[in-house]
Amino acid sequence: MSFVKGITHARPWLALVLGMAALSAVTHAPAHAEERRMFAIAIHGGAGTIERSRITPEQDLAFRSALNAAVEAGYAILEKGGSSLDAVSAAVRILEDDPQFNAGRGAVLTHDGRVELDASIMDGRNLRAGAVTGVQHVRSPIELARRIMEQSRHVMLSGAGAEEFALEQKLELVPNSWFITPRRRDELKRALAGLPPPPDQLVGMGTVGAVALDASGNLAAATSTGGMTNKRWGRIGDSPIIGAGTYANNASCAVSATGHGEYFIRYTVAHDICAIVEYRNWSLERAAREVVQNKLKQAGGDGGIIAVDARGNVVMEFNSDGMFRAMRDSRGRREIAIYRE
Amino acid sequence: MSFVKGITHARPWLALVLGMAALSAVTHAPAHAEERRMFAIAIHGGAGTIERSRITPEQDLAFRSALNAAVEAGYAILEKGGSSLDAVSAAVRILEDDPQFNAGRGAVLTHDGRVELDASIMDGRNLRAGAVTGVQHVRSPIELARRIMEQSRHVMLSGAGAEEFALEQKLELVPNSWFITPRRRDELKRALAGLPPPPDQLVGMGTVGAVALDASGNLAAATSTGGMTNKRWGRIGDSPIIGAGTYANNASCAVSATGHGEYFIRYTVAHDICAIVEYRNWSLERAAREVVQNKLKQAGGDGGIIAVDARGNVVMEFNSDGMFRAMRDSRGRREIAIYRE
Repeated sequence: MSFVKGITHARPWLALVLGMAALSAVTHAPAHAEERRMFAIAIHGGAGTIERSRITPEQDLAFRSALNAAVEAGYAILEKGGSSLDAVSAAVRILEDDPQFNAGRGAVLTHDGRVELDASIMDGRNLRAGAVTGVQHVRSPIELARRIMEQSRHVMLSGAGAEEFALEQKLELVPNSWFITPRRRDELKRALAGLPPPPDQLVGMGTVGAVALDASGNLAAATSTGGMTNKRWGRIGDSPIIGAGTYANNASCAVSATGHGEYFIRYTVAHDICAIVEYRNWSLERAAREVVQNKLKQAGGDGGIIAVDARGNVVMEFNSDGMFRAMRDSRGRREIAIYRE
Repeated sequence: MSFVKGITHARPWLALVLGMAALSAVTHAPAHAEERRMFAIAIHGGAGTIERSRITPEQDLAFRSALNAAVEAGYAILEKGGSSLDAVSAAVRILEDDPQFNAGRGAVLTHDGRVELDASIMDGRNLRAGAVTGVQHVRSPIELARRIMEQSRHVMLSGAGAEEFALEQKLELVPNSWFITPRRRDELKRALAGLPPPPDQLVGMGTVGAVALDASGNLAAATSTGGMTNKRWGRIGDSPIIGAGTYANNASCAVSATGHGEYFIRYTVAHDICAIVEYRNWSLERAAREVVQNKLKQAGGDGGIIAVDARGNVVMEFNSDGMFRAMRDSRGRREIAIYRE
């Protein structure tokens, strides 16, 4: 569907918000954009049981506005010739701070009623990567993942040790309660009592991520999450696992995943899509469809991925009812969507 | 090199030890072994700077005896028609308990002077997997990884939460001091003081792992480690990362890796080898060589892998000076080696 058609069809009032954002983007366009190489960004805010009937018009608008803000922030960086790493970091930071999504503020609660956050980031230019799991006080886990990539000799840090590193890096730390919203507290209470979620809530949903290709031809991917509601035993999902939830390689593509993490780890989803593109020479679209609609679906692994390849092709593939997603590229393609359209 | 030739050439006294083990294996051979399908096992005990001049004859014998014990334990299971999962678990458990290797007892110490253990296991039949990171009291991390795979809905657990799960599973817990050996204490002291390691010691080496193909045609892989000497900030290496340190898929191969973990995560080494076998249709040998000798070596990633494919081909490839390794298959091929032969 075209961007404008989709918007006006679904929510006429949203056209104003997005139109203003588009206007602002045009104002900042560089003078010789046509001479540059192609660039593109895609973001997601989680996949799962997203039924139209469960989302109120107000929620729908709020989700689309948030997705728009994140994708535009990343796009603006790319448009100024910024790096794909900066673009995915900026988009994910916005979604982390937005309490609607399961990352940073608004993340789901563990069995013990706390927030434990995971994130990872990867640079497709040199396969450098950073990842963090189980932090409870770092305001932006994706920023910490990036510092791990750029300022440590390691790829993956965890728990209290990762927070010590965050302090050394002078990153912002907040009390665990800063992340907790009444909605997530209610979700946990119901989960502990064995009750179904309230009908107007999207439970446990909302891992966020971004992928981008910049005008220099470099790919990057980033993912951030609070994991699963009511998680126990220090459970780690796919989001901080390089190869599973996040992968980027200029030779193939950049992928960020969201869904039932255990399946995404077992199928090494992000790297598998890149491997099919590189070794089988399949299109990104076909590779993503094979992994998401065949491999994962047959195994029972719900979820989806966003991906972009070195030619700027963007794919947003999911096997669940819906996936919060948005994309924009320098050829003029734009999309913000929630349901299967 | 042939098994006997290698042994008699290097250490004539070892022939006796290994000859006895071989005799014992023959005694337990099933009556109709020829009618069964091919089976094979390979193990490693770490790769790195292993110079002949640094290893005394006594150390050499002790290492080879340990490798022999582990590979024979796994082989005996395969020979009786047991599963590849049981074979890799048994082999890794023996190496975890052996203080010569960097896994379980004898693991390297963290910056804070503690032992923090990681492990993972994967079943190539159904891509089920289990992994654990940062446990300090579980005697056999590989056994815990297997329980996570078989008894939880999760793939990866961490830290104190993983130990709570281990207690629920009635696994054996031990004080952290149980794992600590004088040699590793000395290594840490020197690392903290910025001193080089003592000349007769193999510092920080010794991640252990096993891969196997059983007579039913199923592949499995397992890896266990203490990580890096003097590690900080809750650093996680490749060993507990499904796709990086461990991967098994009946459609391609089973891989266990050892080396500079950060590079093995960035290159998703275990899954990459399997992907090249499956998607490029390369032989396991060629795929392993491509990843270990080209990709990893160019990036500066020291280490190696052991792997076995669905036809029982065993590969033990490394780009470092040496790798503690052993293999045995039902066609009669046997090898125990340390250096580049």
